[in-house]
Amino acid sequence: MRKRSWWGWGWDDQAVVGKDLDDLAQRVSQYLPLDGHVTPVPVLDGLPKPALPQPPVESRGDTEARAAHTHGKAFRDVVRNLNADLKRPPEWVIYPQHEEDITRVFEWAIANNAKVIPFGGGSSVTGGIEYRGDEPFVSLDLSALDGVLDIDEVNLAVRAQGGIFGPALEAQLKPHELTLRHYPQSFEFSTFGGWIATRAGGHYATGYTHIDDLVQSVRIVTPSGVSEAQRVPANGAGPEPDRMWLGSEGSFGVISEAWARVQRRPTFKSSASITFSGYSESVAAVKEIAQSGLNPANCRLLDPIEAMLNTATPSATLILGFESADHPVDTALGRAVEICHGHGGEVSTKDEAGQWRGAFLKAPYLRDGLVRLGVVVETFETACLWSGFQQLHEAIVEALSPALVTCRFTHVYPDGPAPYFTVYAAGQRGGELELWDDLKARASHVLLAHGATITHHHAVGRDHLPWYRPSPPFLAAMRAVKQTLDPHNILNPGVLHL
Amino acid sequence: MRKRSWWGWGWDDQAVVGKDLDDLAQRVSQYLPLDGHVTPVPVLDGLPKPALPQPPVESRGDTEARAAHTHGKAFRDVVRNLNADLKRPPEWVIYPQHEEDITRVFEWAIANNAKVIPFGGGSSVTGGIEYRGDEPFVSLDLSALDGVLDIDEVNLAVRAQGGIFGPALEAQLKPHELTLRHYPQSFEFSTFGGWIATRAGGHYATGYTHIDDLVQSVRIVTPSGVSEAQRVPANGAGPEPDRMWLGSEGSFGVISEAWARVQRRPTFKSSASITFSGYSESVAAVKEIAQSGLNPANCRLLDPIEAMLNTATPSATLILGFESADHPVDTALGRAVEICHGHGGEVSTKDEAGQWRGAFLKAPYLRDGLVRLGVVVETFETACLWSGFQQLHEAIVEALSPALVTCRFTHVYPDGPAPYFTVYAAGQRGGELELWDDLKARASHVLLAHGATITHHHAVGRDHLPWYRPSPPFLAAMRAVKQTLDPHNILNPGVLHL
Repeated sequence: MRKRSWWGWGWDDQAVVGKDLDDLAQRVSQYLPLDGHVTPVPVLDGLPKPALPQPPVESRGDTEARAAHTHGKAFRDVVRNLNADLKRPPEWVIYPQHEEDITRVFEWAIANNAKVIPFGGGSSVTGGIEYRGDEPFVSLDLSALDGVLDIDEVNLAVRAQGGIFGPALEAQLKPHELTLRHYPQSFEFSTFGGWIATRAGGHYATGYTHIDDLVQSVRIVTPSGVSEAQRVPANGAGPEPDRMWLGSEGSFGVISEAWARVQRRPTFKSSASITFSGYSESVAAVKEIAQSGLNPANCRLLDPIEAMLNTATPSATLILGFESADHPVDTALGRAVEICHGHGGEVSTKDEAGQWRGAFLKAPYLRDGLVRLGVVVETFETACLWSGFQQLHEAIVEALSPALVTCRFTHVYPDGPAPYFTVYAAGQRGGELELWDDLKARASHVLLAHGATITHHHAVGRDHLPWYRPSPPFLAAMRAVKQTLDPHNILNPGVLHL
Repeated sequence: MRKRSWWGWGWDDQAVVGKDLDDLAQRVSQYLPLDGHVTPVPVLDGLPKPALPQPPVESRGDTEARAAHTHGKAFRDVVRNLNADLKRPPEWVIYPQHEEDITRVFEWAIANNAKVIPFGGGSSVTGGIEYRGDEPFVSLDLSALDGVLDIDEVNLAVRAQGGIFGPALEAQLKPHELTLRHYPQSFEFSTFGGWIATRAGGHYATGYTHIDDLVQSVRIVTPSGVSEAQRVPANGAGPEPDRMWLGSEGSFGVISEAWARVQRRPTFKSSASITFSGYSESVAAVKEIAQSGLNPANCRLLDPIEAMLNTATPSATLILGFESADHPVDTALGRAVEICHGHGGEVSTKDEAGQWRGAFLKAPYLRDGLVRLGVVVETFETACLWSGFQQLHEAIVEALSPALVTCRFTHVYPDGPAPYFTVYAAGQRGGELELWDDLKARASHVLLAHGATITHHHAVGRDHLPWYRPSPPFLAAMRAVKQTLDPHNILNPGVLHL
């Protein structure tokens, strides 16, 4: 069986090593000074024995399991792992086998004064799955709840358990010619329930971009009982229950299963890459497309540096794609390209889209390679109004200078883009975390000052918490919900200021 | 100035009277027995003096104002008005002139042990604006908060106060070639804030159907302070605050203003009416269109009886329309018509769409005419899965027999339709309310038993309350929110079981 990396992103066998790592160092040294050292992956000493009695549900207390559940996959997580810095591991990793096990874990946790951190795929890049308090805690790994329970071909919906990973879910939809079409960058390493708890962003660049829009009915196990909404296509009866669980980051309960809307696999596809002589012209073109009602499935604008690094095209590049299971989409693509022409865009003869896709999936592995080379890498994403984007972009670049900053739009809306920034800075051995924290703080401060959200689809977790500022009445309301559903405060404490 | 009807729907001068009422009686008598009597509109006696001291904000205590704020516009409201049955009027009708007045009213209400019922246009058809408790209450009429505060042509958004009516909002958008394109049947008589508080359904038959989808950021005044969300195109930071206010029906606070997404006025339009030989064939065609991704702006399926009554076409009729401000939509219409052909549909040469539109806007006035003729009329709407629609439809017709039941789809989704039922029954003078309550109970019971929602866009109000069944954990959470935001329980008490 293929093994997951305990210290870095994804599959162990996909880590960038040997000649690939040398090549990466070669390329990067054009931009940033490197010290020629490669941090080795440490061999872990055994962790101290669990400080809690064994839970009454299948669980592991060995070092391997606990180490792999100590941190998420942010830069600061990888650095700490490479430093063998596992100061706060979970005492146990618990694997509920069915929904009732979740309730048993809650009861056990209350009786043992333990905190419970729900764990989907563990791909959080915002500190969502580590506990920073003092009490002993356990990691509730939901990967055994990985069933597809129903496929409804009439109403185009799937009912699946929260712990199922992206590929397993799609694999079971495929024989029915159906697809959820929700592909976060973490697709292979994140779960259906995790997407819901963190409001993940998916495949579609426009329209129904978030898992929020695909969810039909969530079933959540809280310490105060199970909640499940009616399964209807739309509703107008009171505030929508599912919207309280979407983005709740494990603080109210554990998403045991959900119904989500699927669709027929697209059979018509048209795409093009368009390059622009200037970045602001390309932004103007994308704004016009986003406001046109054409609704491209893909509408990813790479700024000149991001385009250069990923596709070797030294100018702003728009990757556009349309798809349908019902009708041809060439006319829609044609109109979108026409809009681009109006802003000086030219259809490229290169396959930027294919190159981009390859680079996109490899990016987190390359990030881990860079970490080992001593580079500080940060990625963060946001959403803002069109009118504020240019100033925001300039302010981010300025605030993070002299770090190298690249930007792409992952999703676009009629009222604004969702820009995703990648930051590369020369690190100092031993000072990487400090520098990362500093970059994060500087970037987050700029987002807040410019009215942009602290996260479009990476969740708040613990790393974004200082810049998550709900209104006082809304925060008071959420705290009241927390107190009602989790009166012993066992679930992911501290998240969302709850 | 044109006058609003105090006892019935809409404008006083649009009431069906004289020869029009005679004609209506003539037509209806083909289907239902009439007793030949026409209930007169009563002249109201003066109401007793207000039982509360005058509030410190502009307010009226006269009979005219209070009578017009005693009931909504449901059948049971019109009957009670025609019977001069105004047992529970508000003591005062209060007209806040700015946001601070709302807070002053809250403080006054707490000090005076008064309940506060927020009132937008008063077009509720579910008992949303009447108080059924014993305490004295006031009606908080928001119609003076009717300003458009900002029009943002770059990001396509409008900021308006909660008390603005539909036509005033559109009139101020029009010079900018913009439109909110949210046209509930009550458009002329309902407000922006009311739409948000009740999750109103709008113009679009597919895609962004509810005001929920158009709202960018809500500002709400609660007894525990003002809450306002960040104004961003999309967000992933915690549960979405706006979703807690959407559908809150005045129980958490008063929506003082909001930003909503607007769009350029459509310049390309294509439409067609299609008739089908069988109802089930027409439903199958609409299901295929709803799942095609074509996203028609209009996709209203009239069942044979509804088509007959409104357009004199004696077969299931689909009114289809596409629109865009950017590109031609004939191809999309063509593909939708092709889908209809596949199910035996034929493009009609009659203008069913135009006839339908006329009938649609006149319907509530005709309803009031029918009330005066002694007919019991009920309308209710829901949403269900495609797989359950036929059974639901049959069960509704059976449960309400021998009443005449018609059905149309107001909105359709990939996973199911939103059917809207109209019910006509022969009434007995003096027994109308009992029969209406009985029809409502029978219909609601069927909805619940078939997994359909108690309301797709009419809100829960007080009339739907027995069939609004949130899960116990979610209800407990909502009650905790209520207790936090409105600790003295002054706001619209009883709504949503809060």
